Amino acid sequence: MKARVTVTLKSGILDPQGKAIEGALKSLGIAGVASVRQGKVFDIEIEGRDRKAAQAALEQAADKLLANSLIENYQVELK
Amino acid sequence: MKARVTVTLKSGILDPQGKAIEGALKSLGIAGVASVRQGKVFDIEIEGRDRKAAQAALEQAADKLLANSLIENYQVELK
Repeated sequence: MKARVTVTLKSGILDPQGKAIEGALKSLGIAGVASVRQGKVFDIEIEGRDRKAAQAALEQAADKLLANSLIENYQVELK
Repeated sequence: MKARVTVTLKSGILDPQGKAIEGALKSLGIAGVASVRQGKVFDIEIEGRDRKAAQAALEQAADKLLANSLIENYQVELK
């Protein structure tokens, strides 16, 4: 089963990398960019067909390793 | 207007970071992880309401800066 975990910074947490990208896009002349925030995605292949078990395993993975819950939110999507 | 650009490695391109995460998840005892591939997301706020113009600007941003088209694919979603 394929899944995607998306990890993004919580609002209010500064994102200097996003700011740098925003500046670079402006200096490349790309119109209308008001803000950029960068995050991470993890495309994970899970064995088995039990969607509940997969969801639970992915939430555990995000809590323990993929996201820092102090500053990041995550979202799990099963496909 | 909010948009999300997701950048992922093309299939066939080695992903040592994903492999390391896969190993770490296994050693944390998280069940059933067959593979992990890491990518990036950019949450971009675009000024104006012209969806076509926004889509074009985002594709230009991805081509010029956000993705390396030799090794990465990107996907633009307008919300």
